[in-house]
Amino acid sequence: MAKDKLVKSITSRDEDFAQWYTDVCKKAELMDYTDVKGFIIYRPYGYALWEAMQQYLDKEFKRTGHENVYMPLLIPESLFMKEADHVEGFAPETAIVTIGGKEVLQERLIIRPTSEVLFCDHFAKIVSSYRDLPKKYNQWCSVVRWEKTTRPFLRGSEFLWQEGHTIHATEQEARQEVLGMLDIYNSLGKEVLAIPFVQGQKTDKEKFAGAEETYTIEALMHDGKALQSGTTHYFGSGFAEAFNIKFQDKDSKVKTVFQTSWGLSTRLIGAVIMVHGDDSGLVLPPFVAPTQVVLVLIQQQNELVQRVAMELKTALEALNVRVKIDDSDKSPGWKFAEHEMKGIPIRIEIGPRDLESNEVVIAKRVDNQKVKVQVQEVAAFIPSMLSSIHQQMYDSALANLTENTRSAYSYPEFKDIIASKGGYVKMMLCDDQTCENLIKEETQATARCIPFVQEQMTPHCPVCGKAATKQVYFAKAY
Amino acid sequence: MAKDKLVKSITSRDEDFAQWYTDVCKKAELMDYTDVKGFIIYRPYGYALWEAMQQYLDKEFKRTGHENVYMPLLIPESLFMKEADHVEGFAPETAIVTIGGKEVLQERLIIRPTSEVLFCDHFAKIVSSYRDLPKKYNQWCSVVRWEKTTRPFLRGSEFLWQEGHTIHATEQEARQEVLGMLDIYNSLGKEVLAIPFVQGQKTDKEKFAGAEETYTIEALMHDGKALQSGTTHYFGSGFAEAFNIKFQDKDSKVKTVFQTSWGLSTRLIGAVIMVHGDDSGLVLPPFVAPTQVVLVLIQQQNELVQRVAMELKTALEALNVRVKIDDSDKSPGWKFAEHEMKGIPIRIEIGPRDLESNEVVIAKRVDNQKVKVQVQEVAAFIPSMLSSIHQQMYDSALANLTENTRSAYSYPEFKDIIASKGGYVKMMLCDDQTCENLIKEETQATARCIPFVQEQMTPHCPVCGKAATKQVYFAKAY
Repeated sequence: MAKDKLVKSITSRDEDFAQWYTDVCKKAELMDYTDVKGFIIYRPYGYALWEAMQQYLDKEFKRTGHENVYMPLLIPESLFMKEADHVEGFAPETAIVTIGGKEVLQERLIIRPTSEVLFCDHFAKIVSSYRDLPKKYNQWCSVVRWEKTTRPFLRGSEFLWQEGHTIHATEQEARQEVLGMLDIYNSLGKEVLAIPFVQGQKTDKEKFAGAEETYTIEALMHDGKALQSGTTHYFGSGFAEAFNIKFQDKDSKVKTVFQTSWGLSTRLIGAVIMVHGDDSGLVLPPFVAPTQVVLVLIQQQNELVQRVAMELKTALEALNVRVKIDDSDKSPGWKFAEHEMKGIPIRIEIGPRDLESNEVVIAKRVDNQKVKVQVQEVAAFIPSMLSSIHQQMYDSALANLTENTRSAYSYPEFKDIIASKGGYVKMMLCDDQTCENLIKEETQATARCIPFVQEQMTPHCPVCGKAATKQVYFAKAY
Repeated sequence: MAKDKLVKSITSRDEDFAQWYTDVCKKAELMDYTDVKGFIIYRPYGYALWEAMQQYLDKEFKRTGHENVYMPLLIPESLFMKEADHVEGFAPETAIVTIGGKEVLQERLIIRPTSEVLFCDHFAKIVSSYRDLPKKYNQWCSVVRWEKTTRPFLRGSEFLWQEGHTIHATEQEARQEVLGMLDIYNSLGKEVLAIPFVQGQKTDKEKFAGAEETYTIEALMHDGKALQSGTTHYFGSGFAEAFNIKFQDKDSKVKTVFQTSWGLSTRLIGAVIMVHGDDSGLVLPPFVAPTQVVLVLIQQQNELVQRVAMELKTALEALNVRVKIDDSDKSPGWKFAEHEMKGIPIRIEIGPRDLESNEVVIAKRVDNQKVKVQVQEVAAFIPSMLSSIHQQMYDSALANLTENTRSAYSYPEFKDIIASKGGYVKMMLCDDQTCENLIKEETQATARCIPFVQEQMTPHCPVCGKAATKQVYFAKAY
C-alpha cells in the first residue's frame, strides 16, 4: 500500500532520533542540501514556516517601536577587530572575501557573522543628542559562521535570522528592552509555535561574545536535549565605548549610550520539528502551518464530492483558514501519508458514502482522532478546532518539559540523571567557573540558564562544596 | 529662518542633478555610506520604501501561484562556470570567498551575483515528471556585483532585490510567465510608485547573460536619462540543457524544461527619488510613503490644538491612513522643511487661530497647494486626496515621459536630440549590431527597448541604410 511505502522511508523517532530528524527535513520537503557543507536550500514548505514567524515577530517589533534597516553583508576586517571579546568569539568561524572584481582586495572583508560592529559604527555617526535616542533597529538577513559540524536548521554555516540592535540614553531603558524582547520571543513560542520555553540568564561562560549579560529562551526537544531558541543581550556601554557612541544629554553633559542586541533564527524550524514531530513525520502547530486544512476527495470524479469540496474551501477561506484541496490522482492512502508527513493539522475526507448522510470525516494530525461532522457545520467547527489543537500541542509539550525537568542535590545524582534520563537538571552552582567547566567535560551537559524564578535547593555548590550563588538549568544541548 | 537653513543644504535639481540626488539620499535619511565602496546602509526611511514595494509584489507573486524559497549565499566556482554566456557576463564582477574558518578553501566560493545556477542545480534534483511542473519560485535577498562606479540605490556592489525563477513543461507557458511578471512590475509602477514605464524587449546586445530574450520596464528620470527598472528573461532551454533539467511528459517522452527568471531591485528607490523629487527634497507617492499624513501642531502647548491632533490621528488611523504627529519642540518652519525634505504627501497644520473657525490647513507636498478644511470633514477628505495626489503624480510623470519622447528619422537628427534634449529617442534599426555599437560609442545612448507597439517610421536603418527590422527606444541611461 502506498501509505506504507512513504512512511516506511522514515526512520523511527525512538530508534535513531538524529536520522529521524534528517528524514523529516528531507521527506517533508523543508530543505535540501547543496554541495557546500552547511549551506542549505530553504524549500517552499520550510521557508513558509520562517515567513509565519517573521510575520508575527515583525508586527510585534513594529508595535513596540522598532524600525527595520539593512546593513551591508561585508565588514572590513579592521572594523570587525574593534571590540576584543567580540573578535575572540567570532573570528575563528568567519568566511573572508579576499577577491573582488578580479582583484585582490587591499583590506579583507568578512561576511557578517552578526552585525554589532556595523550598527555601532553607524550609531556613532548618527547620534549626537538625547533627542536622537533611543534608536531601536531590527534587520532581517542571513549570516555566515563557518561551522565544523552542521545540521539542517539547527547549526548551519549560513542561516536566516533577525538581529535587533538598540541604543538608549539610560541603563534602565536598555535593560527593559532586553527583557521586553525576550517576552516577545517567549510569546512566539506560546502563541504561534506551541512551544513552552525555560527563560533565564546565561552564565558568564555561556554568554554572547561582548555582552555583559545574555538572556535566553530554551526549548526541550523530544529526545531530552535542549535547544537555545533565541537570545537577548545587554551590552552596557562596552561596545559604545569602543565605537565612541556618545550623546549630549538634557543636562548638557556628554554621555555614552547603553546598548542591546537580540536575535532569533531559522533554528526554530528545527525546534518545531523536534518538539512536535512523530514517526509519521512533521506535526505542525496550526498557527504556523502553511496549510491548516487539507480537503481529500475520496472518488474525486464524483460530482457531489467535488462540489462539497469547493463549497467547504470557499467557506473556510472566508474565515481566513489556510485550506487546500488535494485532487491529485494519487490513492487516498498515499495522500493521507503525504499530508501526515507534512504535518497538516486537519484533514477532511470527503467521500460519497459519508455524503449520503451529509457528513464528512475530520481527522486531527496530532492524535489521529477522527470525527464525523455534518457538512454545513464544518466551517463553524474548524477555527475552534485549530485553537484547541494548538492548546493540546502546547500542553503536551509543557507536560514533556515538566516531566523531564529534574532536581539534583548532589553531583553524583546530577551525573546519573544526565546519563540515564536526559532532559533538564536543576542544580545549585557557585561562582567559580571551574565547576561549570568540569560538568561540561564530564557529562557534556551545559548550563542552559539561570532561571528567573530561583529556588534555594542547597546552600552549597554540589560540585565543589563552596557557597552556592545561583540555581541553574543544565542539559545536553544542540 | 530654520526652514531656509535646512533647504539651502540641498543642491538645486537643475543646477547639478547628480549632487541633488546624493543630497536627497542623505538628507532625507534614506541611506548612509560605509567604509566599503558600493555597500550602503539602508536607513529606516529608505528601507520602508523597499518594504512597501515588497509587500505589494509578494502579494502579487503569491496570488499568481509563486512560492518563496531561499538559496545559499555562496556558489561553488565550478557550479558557477556551467553556463558559458552567464559566466562571461558575471565573472568579472564577482566577490570571492577564499577563506572559511581560518582555512584556505579547497574550492573558491562566489557570493551570488544572481542565483540562476543554484536554482538550476536544485530543479534538476527535484523534477522528474510533468506532475512536478511548473515550479514557480521567488527569493528575496541581497546580491553582490563588484561595480567600479557606484551610486546609492542606482548601482551598488550590494543591492536588495527579488529574483523569480520558474520552469515549465511548455514554451508557451514559460513565455506567458515572462510577460505576466512584466505586467506585475508595470502595475507596481502604475499603482504604487506613480511611475509610468516604457515596456518592451531588450536588443540582443542588451539582454541578460544567458537569456534568449529579455523584457524590461524603463523609467524616465527628471534629468532625461532612462533607468532600467525591472527585467524578465526567457531562457528557453539553454540553462536546462546545461544543467540537465528533464522530465517525463504525459506522452512518456523525456523532455527538457523551459525556464524564466525575473528581478526587480532597490534601484526603484532611486527611480522614486529622480522621477518625483524637487528642490525641497523627496516627493513620495502616497501609496509608498511610510508616513502619508503628518500633523503639525502650531502652538503645541495649546490644549485644544493637542486634542484636535489626537482626534484626527485616531480618525485617520481608523481609515488605515499612515499618520504621525510631530509634537517636537522645533519651530514650525523647521518642521515644514523637514517634512518636505522627507516627501510626506500631506501636512495638516493645526493652529489655535484656524481652530477658532473650526478649521485646519491641509498642504499638499506635490504642488504646495493649501486648503482650509473643517475639522470634522478632514477624515473623509484625506483618503480621496491621497488617491488624487497619486493620480496627479502619475499624470505629471507621464506628461514628462511623453514630452521627452522624440522621433528621429535620420542619424544626425538622432544625435542632435540626444545631445541637446535628452529623453527617449525613437528610431528604426537594422539587425546589424554594428549600428547599435556605433550609436553607443558616438552618443552614449543605448537601446533601452524594442517597444511592444511598433511604429514603421522609416523603411531603412538611419545609421547604415540597410533594411530596418525594428523600432527602438534609445536614451542615455543610469
